[in-house]
Formats: sequence, C-alpha cells, structure tokens
Amino acid sequence: MLARHLRETLEAQFDASLGVLTELLGKHRRKIRTRLPDLGQRRRWFERLLAGAVPRLLRQRQPLQAERALLTALGESAQGPGEGSVVLVGAGPGDPGLLTLRALRALNEADVILHDRLVSAEVLALARRDAERIEVGKQAGHHPTPQDDIHALMLAHARAGRRVVRLKGGDPFVFGRGGEELEVLRAHGIAYEVVPGITAALACAAYAGIPLTHRDHAQSLRLITAHSRDCGAPPDWRALAAERQTLAVYMGVAELGSLQAQLIAHGREATTPFALIENGSRPEQRVITGTLADLARRAQTHAVVSPALLILGEVAAFATTLHWFGAAPLTHADLPSSELRSAA
Amino acid sequence: MLARHLRETLEAQFDASLGVLTELLGKHRRKIRTRLPDLGQRRRWFERLLAGAVPRLLRQRQPLQAERALLTALGESAQGPGEGSVVLVGAGPGDPGLLTLRALRALNEADVILHDRLVSAEVLALARRDAERIEVGKQAGHHPTPQDDIHALMLAHARAGRRVVRLKGGDPFVFGRGGEELEVLRAHGIAYEVVPGITAALACAAYAGIPLTHRDHAQSLRLITAHSRDCGAPPDWRALAAERQTLAVYMGVAELGSLQAQLIAHGREATTPFALIENGSRPEQRVITGTLADLARRAQTHAVVSPALLILGEVAAFATTLHWFGAAPLTHADLPSSELRSAA
Ligand SMILES: C[S@@+](CC[C@H](N)C(=O)[O-])C[C@H]1O[C@@H](n2cnc3c(N)ncnc32)[C@H](O)[C@@H]1O
Ligand SMILES: C[S@@+](CC[C@H](N)C(=O)[O-])C[C@H]1O[C@@H](n2cnc3c(N)ncnc32)[C@H](O)[C@@H]1O
Repeated sequence: MLARHLRETLEAQFDASLGVLTELLGKHRRKIRTRLPDLGQRRRWFERLLAGAVPRLLRQRQPLQAERALLTALGESAQGPGEGSVVLVGAGPGDPGLLTLRALRALNEADVILHDRLVSAEVLALARRDAERIEVGKQAGHHPTPQDDIHALMLAHARAGRRVVRLKGGDPFVFGRGGEELEVLRAHGIAYEVVPGITAALACAAYAGIPLTHRDHAQSLRLITAHSRDCGAPPDWRALAAERQTLAVYMGVAELGSLQAQLIAHGREATTPFALIENGSRPEQRVITGTLADLARRAQTHAVVSPALLILGEVAAFATTLHWFGAAPLTHADLPSSELRSAA
Repeated sequence: MLARHLRETLEAQFDASLGVLTELLGKHRRKIRTRLPDLGQRRRWFERLLAGAVPRLLRQRQPLQAERALLTALGESAQGPGEGSVVLVGAGPGDPGLLTLRALRALNEADVILHDRLVSAEVLALARRDAERIEVGKQAGHHPTPQDDIHALMLAHARAGRRVVRLKGGDPFVFGRGGEELEVLRAHGIAYEVVPGITAALACAAYAGIPLTHRDHAQSLRLITAHSRDCGAPPDWRALAAERQTLAVYMGVAELGSLQAQLIAHGREATTPFALIENGSRPEQRVITGTLADLARRAQTHAVVSPALLILGEVAAFATTLHWFGAAPLTHADLPSSELRSAA
C-alpha cells in the first residue's frame, strides 16, 4: 500500500512538469502533423524531442525559449545527434534516501555519468541501467583525474549529443569545484542545469542529532576545509576561534592536530565540544565526541578514516543526548572499554 | 517510458529497506503464526507493525532494537493506539523536486503534518491525501505560533499514537529551531528521526549559478542570520567582513542597510559583489546583483520581499555569467530599463 502511494505521488510530481510540455505540444499539434505526416517519423521526432532541449528549458523555467526550441526542432531534419547537455548533480553523503527527486530523475535520464569516487554504490545503483559510468575522482594509485581531463570528458560526451550527469558527493558547490566545471561548459556553449545536494555538514549533523545553529549556543555556521594549503592566504585563525559559532570542517582527518593547536592558541576554549562523524548517513556511520583539547588524540585512538567531518562548537555536545541513528556516539566517558568493544 | 523507469527505481529503493523487514519477519514466522493463528488477526497485527517502531528502528540502523520491538509487539495485546513518533523533515526551499526520497516517504506515511508557513503548497501537495495538515509557522495577523505551543502539539499527537511529520523550510537544523524540538521529544521519551533538507543557501546558489566555494575566490562559507538582535552578543563584524569568504545571510531583507554599513566599516571592500535571491528555486525566482556599496538601495529599488537570501562575496559575480534558471539576473547595468520591464 505504501509502495502504491509513493508511486502515485511520484507520478503526479513528474506529470506536473510533463503537463506543461503536453500543453506546448498541443498548441503546435497542427504544425507538427503537417511537417511530419508519417506516424513513425513523428514518433522518432518525439523521442528526440523528449531527450533534448525542450523539456530541459521547461525545467529551467524558460517557457519562451522552450517554445522557440520546439519550433526549431520542427524545422530541422531529424538526422544527426541531438543536442547534448550536462546536469551537475549533488549526490548527497551516501544514504540513497538523501537523493533529491530531481537528482533521481537526472540519473534516470543520463546516457553518461561522470562520478566522483566518494559517490556511494547505492546511489549509482539508482541510475539508468545502461548508462555509461565513468569514475573521475581518483584513479588506481590515488592519482586524481586532473581537472582538465574531467572538463575534456564532459565536453566530448555532451558534444556527441549525450545527456551527461556530472555526479558529485554532497553538494556540487561546496568544496566541489562545480563552479570551475560550469565555467568551462559556459565557455563552450554547452547547456547545463544544477541540482543541489545535501552537503556533508547538514547530513552528518542530522544523522548525529546535532542542531547546527541554536538560539542558546550558535548563531552562525561556518563551512571550512582543512586542505587550504594550496589556496594562498593562511586562514584567519582568530575569526575561526570565535565563540558561539559552529565550525564544520571538511577533508580534515590528517590536519586535526594543527587545527586543534591553532584554535586553542587563538582563543577557542579547550573545553569546546566536538563531534567527528565518519561515514555520515551510511550504515557504518561512527560518531566520536570529546573536547577540543583531546581532538587529535581521540581521532587517532579510534582510527578515524575518510570520509569524516568535524563539527566543533557548543552544539556538538547534543550528539550525546539527541543521537538517533546507528550506534550511540563514542564518548569520552566510555574510553577505553568502548574502544575494546568497537575494536571487537 | 521515463515514468516507468522512475517507478521501478523508486520501488527498488524502498524494497531494499523493506527487504530487511521481510527477513526479520521470516525469521520469526513460526512464532507469529503460533501467537496469532487467525489470518484476520494476523493481518491487523501486521498493519500496526508497519506503522510502528520496527520499520523505524530498521531505518535508524538499529537492527537489534528492531528485533526486540518485534518480539514485544508479538507479546502485547493488539488493542490501544500504536506507538507514535515524530519525523523532523527538511522540506527544502520550495521546488518540490528538491525534496529527498526520505522526505517524500515520511510525507506519505504521515498521519499529521505540522508545517511552517514557508513550506510551499507544491511540497504539501505531495503528502498523504488524508493526513491532517496544521500550519504552525505564523498565524493570521503575523503572530507566530509560540514555540511552546508547537512542542505541545507534537507531544499530543505523538502520544495519541500518530505518525507526526514536523515539516520545516530548508534544513531543520539551520536557523530552524529543530534542536529545541528534539530536546523536548527526547525529554518526553518520544521516538524521532531527522531528515535533512536542502537549505536556502545551497538551493539559491545552485539555482542562481553561484559556486559557494571556489579555489580562486572563497575557501570558506558562512551561514548567518540578520536577526540576531535577541541572541545576546553582537556579531563579530571584523570577522564577517574578512575577504575570500562567502556570506549567506538568512532573514535579512529589513536589515540590509545596517549590514552594508557595518561590513564596509569593518573593512569589506565596497566593490564586493552580491546576489540577492528572492523565492529561490520557485517559478517566481528573482536574482538581483550588484556591489556591497549599493546593496540596500538596489533591494529597495526592486522591492525585494521575503523569502530572500543574500549571497555576498567574490563568487556572487558568477550569477551574471553562470545563471541558467528562470530570468537572467537584474544587473546593475540594465538599471533602470529592466526595472521598468520587471514592474510591467
Ligand atoms: C572534496 S569534499 C566534497 C564535499 C561535498 N561536495 C559536500 O558538499 O559534502 C570531501 C569531504 O566531504 C566530507 N564528507 C563527504 N561525505 C561524507 C560523509 N558521508 N561523512 C562524513 N564526511 C563526509 C569529508 O570531510 C570529505 O573529506
Ligand atoms: C527562519 S529561516 C529558515 C531557514 C531554513 N531552515 C533553511 O534551512 O533554509 C527563513 C529564511 O530562509 C531564507 N529562505 C528560505 N527559503 C528561501 C527561498 N526559497 N529563497 C530565498 N530565501 C529563502 C530566507 O532568508 C528566509 O528569511
């Protein structure tokens, strides 16, 4: 009964967007029949149309351009590949239930999927069965695919008329280089859309029971990365060490020691609570809690691995009481017995 | 063909989670038959079971507790209301395509939905038809429902055995008071889950073509609110005015003047680009761009209304070139002719 209901809902959701298309086709029905009198011919034309610019422009809320594209498509011969495009999609943190409906649709329409290594197998399993899947995050031996090669791949597939999904972990615009990829598409005149995703900070917070902002404890949330070495100016440690704000630190496992030292040196209380969330939202999620003075040591004791996200600030203490997903957090109190248990 | 494919995908997705339940029921099949020999009786018991703690605990990745709950349910008489629960759900910014699969499922299972005013009608339309919908954000005359009344409503419905969805705009843990609500549930022993949502900053950025972080321009993203008057300490303006970071300002329309003055006074360049996104992701989305020195004036000229989000920082300039959704941004250059057009 649940499945039936969900199905109806989803259909209604997608019918709503198909509705506008149907209307547009209705408006030009006579013209279409005159231009394409043969039924088989008309059917092939419709199939091309459904895979091309018109539905995309309707999703982009550009109805006039969509109508123009429809009339252009009608004027053209039906030969040659259709117009390719790229959808930049956020895949969320791993739980496939955190995909958005738009992301699911893009995965279902894709001819080619260029995905990061971090994207979970469960998410990839939701894509069209015969879509070509290409991993571009890291190659064997941990050499990441150079960003230029990713650009070249996107361009080549789109130019061949394919519907490309560029699938990134979390949200594509948060430490994801999504902007650079759009700049390239834009420069080469390739059509694109962007589907935001649940970024790691929001997913980890939700699944660990940590409100990121809280009237009594934090009026600001900062998303930073511990890998800013190659990005010019050093971080403004004094600002990062300010009280009453929540820090969410991406890509930080190896740099926790220096992070801890710098924040304390610049005035953040050594007793500030933290939560380290490893594999957030996934079945194997682990949450390690403690205070800033102990951060690097506790991460080492529990052998935290990537992907992991650090939440630092008064609100992190809520993980101890508000957690609801998976195992309870490894708190400082249950050291070392819980370590024995988790090692078993 | 598309609809069929999507349906299959969605079913597979939900079957995966039903699979574990089926296994558990299989394991205890004999016990269930012995305890409930009558088919009708067994069917009613299953229905109660599906609406209760066992599937929830499986979603929470707590298989041992789920098994225990199954055995308890088997020992109890089938009378009385089932165990109520609350799912705290992020509804995203308005586009129903930005709901997550988990949010969609929760809406489909809900008996009661307590929703904020900001949640869009299109999203509410996706909920179970016979679910009771209660708006708690603001009452007529703009008096918000007191937070204590929201707590009382959640508790009353959950205690009556209902499946409650507490539906909030964006993400429930970002300027949403979701933490306070969980504290109350936790204190009263009501079971809960949290489903993160696409927060306004991520949605507005994606739909306006603004990468929030960028190697060359911003290594940090800050989410703040312009309504911190009642929250104790004044903001650390110097830190907020730092270069090379992106600010996303929630609930700010009325305070743009003071924001502009303070940031400039504390050292942020008057030429820093901004984008103001009104009704982000919705059909009526508008994007107004300009530089910090002009922020308040341009917001006034274009009569920006709530909900609107401000993105301030070098990356905001990308809206002019990378936009892809709806109308092109209202740039400083097309003033005043575009204003005439938008007023028409
Ligand atoms: C290159 S960044 C990409 C971030 C991504 N665009 C996002 O919005 O979440 C990768 C980092 O994200 C964090 N991360 C991603 N998925 C995670 C998960 N499931 N649990 C914990 N952290 C995660 C980790 O800090 C990881 O090192
Ligand atoms: C009380 S806050 C709630 C934020 C929400 N929990 C979230 O994560 O997005 C409301 C503010 O969010 C922003 N907002 C929410 N939806 C928006 C939208 N569709 N477009 C622009 N801003 C939005 C506005 O700044 C609004 O004043």
